[in-house]
Amino acid sequence: MLLRSLVPLLFTLLAAAPFCVADDGYRLWLKYDVVADAALRKEYQRAAQFIVAGGESATLKTAAEELQQGLQGMLGKAVPMVGEEKGRKGGIILRTDAAAAKNAPLGPEGYRVFTDKQNIVITGRTDAAVLYGSFALLRQLQTRQPLTNLALTSTPKIQHRLLNHWDNPNGTVERGYAGSSIWKWYELPEVIDPRYRDYARANASVGINGVVLNNVNASARYLTAEYLQKVAAVAGVLRPYGIRVYLSVFWAAPKTIGGLPTADPLDQKVRQWWTSKTDEIYRAIPDFGGFLVKANSEGEPGPQDYGRHHADGANMLAAALGQHDGLVMWRAFVYKADAKGDRFKAASQEFLPLDGKFAPKVLVQVKNGPIDFQAREPFHPLFGAMPRTPLVLEVQLTQEYLGFATHAVYLAPLIKECLDADTHAKGPASTVARVVDGSVDQHAVSGIAGVANIGADRNWTGHPLGQANWYAYGRLAWDHTLTSQAIAEEWTRQTLTTEPRAVATVAGLMQQTRSIYVRYTTPLGLHHIMGQSIHYGPEPWLAQSDRPDWTSVYYHRADSEGLGFDRTATGSNALKLYQPAVQQLWGNPQTIAPDYLLWFHHVPWSQPLSTGRTLWDELCTRYYTGADSVQWLQQQWASVRPQLDAALHADVAARLQTQHKEALWWRDACVLYFQTWSRRPIPAPFTPPQRTLADVKQLVDLYQLR
Amino acid sequence: MLLRSLVPLLFTLLAAAPFCVADDGYRLWLKYDVVADAALRKEYQRAAQFIVAGGESATLKTAAEELQQGLQGMLGKAVPMVGEEKGRKGGIILRTDAAAAKNAPLGPEGYRVFTDKQNIVITGRTDAAVLYGSFALLRQLQTRQPLTNLALTSTPKIQHRLLNHWDNPNGTVERGYAGSSIWKWYELPEVIDPRYRDYARANASVGINGVVLNNVNASARYLTAEYLQKVAAVAGVLRPYGIRVYLSVFWAAPKTIGGLPTADPLDQKVRQWWTSKTDEIYRAIPDFGGFLVKANSEGEPGPQDYGRHHADGANMLAAALGQHDGLVMWRAFVYKADAKGDRFKAASQEFLPLDGKFAPKVLVQVKNGPIDFQAREPFHPLFGAMPRTPLVLEVQLTQEYLGFATHAVYLAPLIKECLDADTHAKGPASTVARVVDGSVDQHAVSGIAGVANIGADRNWTGHPLGQANWYAYGRLAWDHTLTSQAIAEEWTRQTLTTEPRAVATVAGLMQQTRSIYVRYTTPLGLHHIMGQSIHYGPEPWLAQSDRPDWTSVYYHRADSEGLGFDRTATGSNALKLYQPAVQQLWGNPQTIAPDYLLWFHHVPWSQPLSTGRTLWDELCTRYYTGADSVQWLQQQWASVRPQLDAALHADVAARLQTQHKEALWWRDACVLYFQTWSRRPIPAPFTPPQRTLADVKQLVDLYQLR
Repeated sequence: MLLRSLVPLLFTLLAAAPFCVADDGYRLWLKYDVVADAALRKEYQRAAQFIVAGGESATLKTAAEELQQGLQGMLGKAVPMVGEEKGRKGGIILRTDAAAAKNAPLGPEGYRVFTDKQNIVITGRTDAAVLYGSFALLRQLQTRQPLTNLALTSTPKIQHRLLNHWDNPNGTVERGYAGSSIWKWYELPEVIDPRYRDYARANASVGINGVVLNNVNASARYLTAEYLQKVAAVAGVLRPYGIRVYLSVFWAAPKTIGGLPTADPLDQKVRQWWTSKTDEIYRAIPDFGGFLVKANSEGEPGPQDYGRHHADGANMLAAALGQHDGLVMWRAFVYKADAKGDRFKAASQEFLPLDGKFAPKVLVQVKNGPIDFQAREPFHPLFGAMPRTPLVLEVQLTQEYLGFATHAVYLAPLIKECLDADTHAKGPASTVARVVDGSVDQHAVSGIAGVANIGADRNWTGHPLGQANWYAYGRLAWDHTLTSQAIAEEWTRQTLTTEPRAVATVAGLMQQTRSIYVRYTTPLGLHHIMGQSIHYGPEPWLAQSDRPDWTSVYYHRADSEGLGFDRTATGSNALKLYQPAVQQLWGNPQTIAPDYLLWFHHVPWSQPLSTGRTLWDELCTRYYTGADSVQWLQQQWASVRPQLDAALHADVAARLQTQHKEALWWRDACVLYFQTWSRRPIPAPFTPPQRTLADVKQLVDLYQLR
Repeated sequence: MLLRSLVPLLFTLLAAAPFCVADDGYRLWLKYDVVADAALRKEYQRAAQFIVAGGESATLKTAAEELQQGLQGMLGKAVPMVGEEKGRKGGIILRTDAAAAKNAPLGPEGYRVFTDKQNIVITGRTDAAVLYGSFALLRQLQTRQPLTNLALTSTPKIQHRLLNHWDNPNGTVERGYAGSSIWKWYELPEVIDPRYRDYARANASVGINGVVLNNVNASARYLTAEYLQKVAAVAGVLRPYGIRVYLSVFWAAPKTIGGLPTADPLDQKVRQWWTSKTDEIYRAIPDFGGFLVKANSEGEPGPQDYGRHHADGANMLAAALGQHDGLVMWRAFVYKADAKGDRFKAASQEFLPLDGKFAPKVLVQVKNGPIDFQAREPFHPLFGAMPRTPLVLEVQLTQEYLGFATHAVYLAPLIKECLDADTHAKGPASTVARVVDGSVDQHAVSGIAGVANIGADRNWTGHPLGQANWYAYGRLAWDHTLTSQAIAEEWTRQTLTTEPRAVATVAGLMQQTRSIYVRYTTPLGLHHIMGQSIHYGPEPWLAQSDRPDWTSVYYHRADSEGLGFDRTATGSNALKLYQPAVQQLWGNPQTIAPDYLLWFHHVPWSQPLSTGRTLWDELCTRYYTGADSVQWLQQQWASVRPQLDAALHADVAARLQTQHKEALWWRDACVLYFQTWSRRPIPAPFTPPQRTLADVKQLVDLYQLR
């Protein structure tokens, strides 16, 4: 009897064999713990008695193995692979079917999962589609959905769904807060860290199909024969999961490793060098995805060094790709140091004139907002403004400006806010999402990029809830019509608990995190007032830096009259970069949503807002209620303790403590600093900070020390 | 029957509960896997039926819990804790006994483990001693020794046995090759990573009793109130394991965080600031260990900035410590850029005049050799030359100059070579070990420091065999009379396998690794010819750097006549820093051991050596046989595959492949480069490299690219 009672436990342990028993977060959302509900488990067991892999390709075998592993975990018993069903019922049949598109517009990656003759059939036009369908089926089980009369159909709306790693050859990750890089360049290609495969599994499970392995501030190392062997080794692990490898390129590589005297994109020898190098890459990695380029930005070299423009550079690389099936993703994140200018307009100034000048294989990669991954930004004015150029949306999953790995910030609402924003480029409903997926301008190619929040920390993302951002990014890249709430629930059920009340509580608090973070850091449209260089903590007083547009005062423009950056016609007129409908929406300080107010208007402290409070009182109210709301997050989190793994719960609870402490830094730093301009009291019912501005400055400035 | 057969497996899994099931290296040498030999397991079970903790102190409870965890794993059954033995037999009794010293000169940390009335008694004068004894008992079981008539007695020969972490506040590790820092400063003090405790367990198990948490290139952050809370949180985890926390200090902290205009150690306000700061530290961490200081070295500030000398600085900190039980460890790693000088002599020039000038709480910390952690160095001439100053021996466990985490280099032979070296300071047998343990000069305080090779990689050290260096360092710090071979066997039995033939093979190959590494990189006393800055790969041609003593040519002095640095009277005369007996040993190129030859002599290429070959032929022979020996390592490793965990075996096998590849880089780079000076052929039976010097240069120089 004792032995018998141990068996389910043993199965759980065995099922998790490649993983860790302790719930240390390594398994991500692919936990595959045994289904506790015996009736449901039985139902699942009846529906999954065997698997027919349907082919010998690496990707089909991978799909079948993933099903086996997941089912063994959740059902508590091994599910055999069989050659063919031979009239048997109650199994899962994988079937790549080039004609599957007849029944539904699946595209190359879309899948159908349906019940047929009492079997579950997973089909699609390609092996990768079947792999995605297999993960969709596993998700059904993980979220405890019924398996009867299945009819799941899904097609990705965006073709190229990438993670961008800002990982350096020395093993550090720029803006990484989850340990070192998972890529062990010194050990490759001989040592293949088992983690690479688990990384691929996680990506494939949410539909990510491309990975840029190295930082946009790129080293030329990656283009050497030595490093291409290493890259090829990684590509070999990712390939069966439908994931292609891309590289960030160092523009001056023809000089540093090619021995040429120039990197001018119109120089014939330079062009030949890139063509040969590209051919060499494709010999090593036949399904290489292409190049990501940061050029003439923040000190990186680029075609402008030779009097050429971005399109000259991008088109040269497109020419080098030639007949190879690869792309160039050219970043629009450029801005020149100009104390009198407005960084908001910089990318538009450089790129708008180039619309229509880019070769077919080139996509321009644009951050969600015009400045730099702030907690809330208006959508980038390039979206909708370059109809002849496919634009890749770049969002940041690593929380560079959102509290590193100590603040809980669920990013799906941020990403959705951008995706759902209406550019009005071709009339209403010309959302950023539809610009990016190509439907507004009828582009044949589309892409999206998330700057990874992944490191070698055991749990991948440092903050356990950071895993949800990786997950949500993948799900939204696949289908931008999904809601943040639905994704949060789905992730929670797979990762934390299936208990309905706890799921609702966790997803509910996740949904609030981003707006809470905005309130206690940069409410009402404030932006870029964080600590310099490391971007940690508040530093609204920052007035001196290597560049004027790296200070805080450049952005908030506080003075004795008011606060905010006038980007209307009386100011920088950046607003004019948007369509008239958008200008109308945001041009009037009385009608613009308060969340965006100070992005576009310099508003008097005493100005009453639509909220019924003056600017100053509203500002203080948001800082105070924002910080207080972290306590609400703590209470919500505390309430689900019985339903969650104890160690994981304690970890997040401790991080919420840190978050509350730092929220109070932000609140006190900002209200005390802005008070030196507004000269108004903290409004009731809020208690003025107990510490002085000097106290807070000293506290947060120490994080700037070497 | 099936169920029954699963039970032992289940126990194994359960026993490893806080750890990972897969043998991913996280458990280090504390694996505690079940004893497979049923008879032996029974014998152990009979001897360990209960544990009497013998007290309520945190350290005693820790010792008892560690025994429980280890025994449960190895015996496959839980061992209960009981209040007292009450005449029972077959148990383990922990007993702190201040009078224990009567029977043996145990000192405060020495332990006795003995059989008494059919119980095993673990005793010592302090709780920490009992903890060490408990780990000694566990080691008996792990290495499958009998438990009958136990009589283990051991006392550490060196008092302060420290790990130095070169970990930065941003989470990177200077010269770290095993991922990011294990210290999560942004998350502390709220989040206590469970790993901190496992780190403490590992250290305590080998007797390490102090930890410097931060890099010697220190940030002033650590001395702020904000960071002291974080440090105190770590100290709280380490304390029950008998481990004290130390900090590296930034000399200019009184200016950067104290607001003072100077950091002059003789300035009263500066002295007062340090005194107050030290008091503040002890309020937060009552058992704080003290300060480690790198001053006026490699750009770091120090007392010389104010015309003071090292003793002024160190003594000021000693005064600040006052009555607190803490120490100052002042590093002697100093050298000024001087193209005409000899870096070998730099530390002696600055420190010899200060002997006798240091306050009682000051120890001077000296690297094992005079240059910088090279693969083989003569012992540092300061050892034996500062009789009035206690000297801490600093060795490096992270393989900065020894192949990072890709080369297998077991460091115990290197450390032993230094410890066993005879300074002749007080006649023969004045070994470095006896200088360091205080017995040569009758010092009351003694210390040793190992620069940690630990990072947040799952297996702690990157290279699985790197764990042995952490282990061996701790064991040698405790007892420098242990042999490298014995430690290698002990580690292997606990970590990899207890199968006798495999243990002999693994320990045997480990013993050879360091001398093999020397042969293919820097044979015959060559040194400092590696790649600049990152210190990866060969770069003997390096002639330009920011400082002359950061080049390779400064050290090898190759010319058309010969090779090596003349440090005799006809050269820099650094040899004169040693005792006459040592000078005699090393002063004659005919009698000096070839391993040290080029450290002291510029030798003609055609000079016959004691080996019977000319310098050139011997040099080539060593490079070739060294590289070939890596294949021998590979064969040896392959032969133990059946006895080892498959994943771990494959990991090391892959690293050996990389090592062989890089050994060939070293061989080819060095013989081809030195051949440009010697103008002699590669001697038979060796085949000249297939590639040119330009080929190798291009290959290894790419690792210098950003």
